[in-house]
Amino acid sequence: MRYPFADRVKMVKSSAVRELLSVIQRGDVISFAGGLPSEEFFPVQDVKKAYDRVFASGPKAMQYGLTEGYTPLRDLISEKMGRKGIESKTENILLTTGSQQAIDLFSRIMISPGDTVLTENPTYLAALQVFQSYEANVVPVEGDQEGMDPEDLEAKMKKLRPKFVYVVPTFSNPEGKVWSEERRKQLVELAHKYNVIIFEDDPYGEIQFHEDETYTPLAVMDEEGTHVLYTSTFSKTVVPALRTGWVTGPFQVIRMMAQAKQSADLHSSSLDQQALYYLMEDFDLESHIRTLRKEYYKRMLIMQDYLKGLNDPNLSWTEPKGGMFLFLKLEESINTTAVLMQAVENGVAYVPGAPFYVGNPQENTMRLNYTHSTPDKLKLGMDRLAQVLSRLKKPSDEPIIF
Amino acid sequence: MRYPFADRVKMVKSSAVRELLSVIQRGDVISFAGGLPSEEFFPVQDVKKAYDRVFASGPKAMQYGLTEGYTPLRDLISEKMGRKGIESKTENILLTTGSQQAIDLFSRIMISPGDTVLTENPTYLAALQVFQSYEANVVPVEGDQEGMDPEDLEAKMKKLRPKFVYVVPTFSNPEGKVWSEERRKQLVELAHKYNVIIFEDDPYGEIQFHEDETYTPLAVMDEEGTHVLYTSTFSKTVVPALRTGWVTGPFQVIRMMAQAKQSADLHSSSLDQQALYYLMEDFDLESHIRTLRKEYYKRMLIMQDYLKGLNDPNLSWTEPKGGMFLFLKLEESINTTAVLMQAVENGVAYVPGAPFYVGNPQENTMRLNYTHSTPDKLKLGMDRLAQVLSRLKKPSDEPIIF
Repeated sequence: MRYPFADRVKMVKSSAVRELLSVIQRGDVISFAGGLPSEEFFPVQDVKKAYDRVFASGPKAMQYGLTEGYTPLRDLISEKMGRKGIESKTENILLTTGSQQAIDLFSRIMISPGDTVLTENPTYLAALQVFQSYEANVVPVEGDQEGMDPEDLEAKMKKLRPKFVYVVPTFSNPEGKVWSEERRKQLVELAHKYNVIIFEDDPYGEIQFHEDETYTPLAVMDEEGTHVLYTSTFSKTVVPALRTGWVTGPFQVIRMMAQAKQSADLHSSSLDQQALYYLMEDFDLESHIRTLRKEYYKRMLIMQDYLKGLNDPNLSWTEPKGGMFLFLKLEESINTTAVLMQAVENGVAYVPGAPFYVGNPQENTMRLNYTHSTPDKLKLGMDRLAQVLSRLKKPSDEPIIF
Repeated sequence: MRYPFADRVKMVKSSAVRELLSVIQRGDVISFAGGLPSEEFFPVQDVKKAYDRVFASGPKAMQYGLTEGYTPLRDLISEKMGRKGIESKTENILLTTGSQQAIDLFSRIMISPGDTVLTENPTYLAALQVFQSYEANVVPVEGDQEGMDPEDLEAKMKKLRPKFVYVVPTFSNPEGKVWSEERRKQLVELAHKYNVIIFEDDPYGEIQFHEDETYTPLAVMDEEGTHVLYTSTFSKTVVPALRTGWVTGPFQVIRMMAQAKQSADLHSSSLDQQALYYLMEDFDLESHIRTLRKEYYKRMLIMQDYLKGLNDPNLSWTEPKGGMFLFLKLEESINTTAVLMQAVENGVAYVPGAPFYVGNPQENTMRLNYTHSTPDKLKLGMDRLAQVLSRLKKPSDEPIIF
C-alpha cells in the first residue's frame, strides 16, 4: 500500500549520514559524532537515591501528573532561573521531554506553513528539522564569531516579518561559539523594536570553561519578560536518560505550549521529574557541574592540542569556551560527507558540517564532540582522524564515491 | 505583546470544564472525572526493584538512547503482541510517551489541513483535540453499541476519501462499549477495499471483565499487516507515571513516526523503558492484570448497582464489559455541563459527555470513572451525585447560570 502521508513529512529528508552513524555505534569505532556527555561522571548512585525517595513517597507518585510537570521541581527551577537573573514564576515554567520537545512545542504553536524563522548559520541540526517539519521558511542571518550581524538581522526582521529568531548564543551547536554581550543586546533590542520573539536555546550554558567570563542570557536582557523564550535541560548536567528539560517565558506562550503538550503526550515521565526534584535537594549539583566544566575543558584541550600539533595551515577552528563541540574547517576541496565512510573504516566518526547549514553548506567542515571519549580514546580517535586527513593529501588511486 | 500564534492553535478550544476539574483535584471532592487507575494496586515495590536493576546495570543505562526505544523492551512487546495474535517484529514497534503520543505522531505524519478523519461519536476527547490541532476535518460515522454502521462507513470512505479511521473498538472511551466481531471484520474489509488506514487505540483492552469472551483486535484481522496501526500502553496495567506506550504497524509508517518522534523529543525516558523491561522479566504482570480485572469489575458493579437502585427510568447506560468508564444518559432536558458546578459543590465530579462528541453533542450525558475510587468512596460519591440529580427534578428557585 502507498501510504498517503501529510505534506509536512515531505520536508523531512532521510539522512544517509544518520544511517551510517547509527550503524557505527555498535562497533569499536571511536565516535566524536554524537552530542553525548561522558558516562564516567554520571552520578548513578545519587540518581538511584533520588528514585528511592520517589518510591518511598508512596503510590501517589506513580499516578498521572500535571501536563506542566511536577510542581516542586518547577519551583526549584524557578529559583535556579532567579539565580541566573531570569525572573520566572513557577507558572511560567513548563517541563518537557528534553529541551528538544520545547523547540518542537514552540514551533508547533508558532509556525504556520510558509512562516519565516530566522536562524544562525550553521545551527542546531535537529532544530532545523523541527522548523522544516512545520513547513517554515527558514532564513539564515549573516554572522560571525560575535553573533548575528545586527544590520542583516534588522533588514530581515523588517522585510520578512519572521515569527521568531532561533539562537544558541552560549556555546553554540555546532560551532561552540559565544555571542558577545553587545550582539546579545542588539538582538534583544531589535526583537523589541520589531516585536519578534526570540527562542533562546541554552542546553550547554552550564558547561562554561572560564568562570571569570560573563555570558548574559538574552532572557535576562529582556527585562519585561515579554520577548524571550528560554529553554535548557538536565541532559548535559545530570543524565540524558531522564529526558527532562524546561522552558520559561511569557505566560501566554507557556500556557499555549502546555495545551499543545497535553495533546502531544499528556505529560512527560513524572517519575523522572520527581527524582530530579529529590536529586536537586540532596545532591550538590553545582559542585558536580564544576567537575564537569573542569574535565570537559581538559578534554577539549587534548583535542585542540592535537590539532595544533598537526601544524596544518589548512585546518581552522575557534577555541570553544564551553559546551561539547569543536567545529573544524578543512581545506576547501574536502567534502567531509564523502570522507566519512573512510573515517569510519579507519575507526573514527564525526558529523559532517553540511546538515547544520541552511542553504549552501560549507562541505569542508566537521563537528567533533570532545566530551564523550576518555582522554585515551580522544587521542586514539584523533590519531585515526589524522591518518584519514593525511591520506587525503596524497593523490589517491581509488575514485572517491559520492 | 500580541503573540502571533500559528493557525493550528486557533483550533484548540480552551475548556472551562478542564479548568474546573483541575481545581477540584485539590479538595475533598470525590472525582469520577479522570481516567485514573487505582493507586491501591500499583506494584510500587516491584517497580522499585526494576529500577534497582537499571541502576545496577551501570552508567550506560543513563546515556541517550534510540528514538525507537529500548530494544529489549521492544522485543518483549513484540512477543506480547504475538500472544495476542498480532504479528509484529521488533522493528515494527515504536515506544512512545504514553499512547497519547502515538496518536499525536501518527496524526502528525498523516494529516494535512483539511484532510478527513473518520471517528466514532462520541469518542476519546484527547484524540479529537489532536486531530483538530492538525486542522483535520473530523467526520463522525453513525454507529450503535455494536460499532460503526458499515453502510455509513462505506459511504463516507467512498465520498470523503479519509486519511484514516480512528477507533477504540474494545471498551471505548467514553462509552465503555465493545464492538461485535462482525463489525470489526466489516471495518477491516472496508479499509482494504478503499485503502484507508485504521488507527486502533487499545489502552483498555487488558481490563476485560468476562474472560470467556473474545474481542479480536483489528490488527489481528488485518492479516497482511498493511492497514492497521495498533497502539496500547502500560499506563493502565502497570503505572501511569512511567508514561510508556507503544505503537505497531506497517514498517514504512512506523519509520516515518520514528522520524517525527526524533524531532518531537529525540526519545522518551529510557530509564522508564529499561525499568519496564526488568519489570516484565521479574514480575507476574499477567497475574497482576487478573487482579485488576477482578477488582475493577467489582467497582463497576458497585456503581451500576447503585444506579439500578435509583429506579429512575430516565437514566440509561450500557453495562461496561471492561475498561474504566460508565457512560450515563440522563433525561433529555438536563445539561450536565451546567450541572457540573453544583455537583462539585456537593463534593462529586464527573466529565460532561459533550466534549467527547463531534458536532452536535448529547448534552444530557456524563462519563463516570469507577476504577480510581475505593468501594467506600464510590458509594459516597454516588450518594452525592444522586442528591444533585434528585434536586434537578424539583423546580429550583435559583436560575441556572450557563
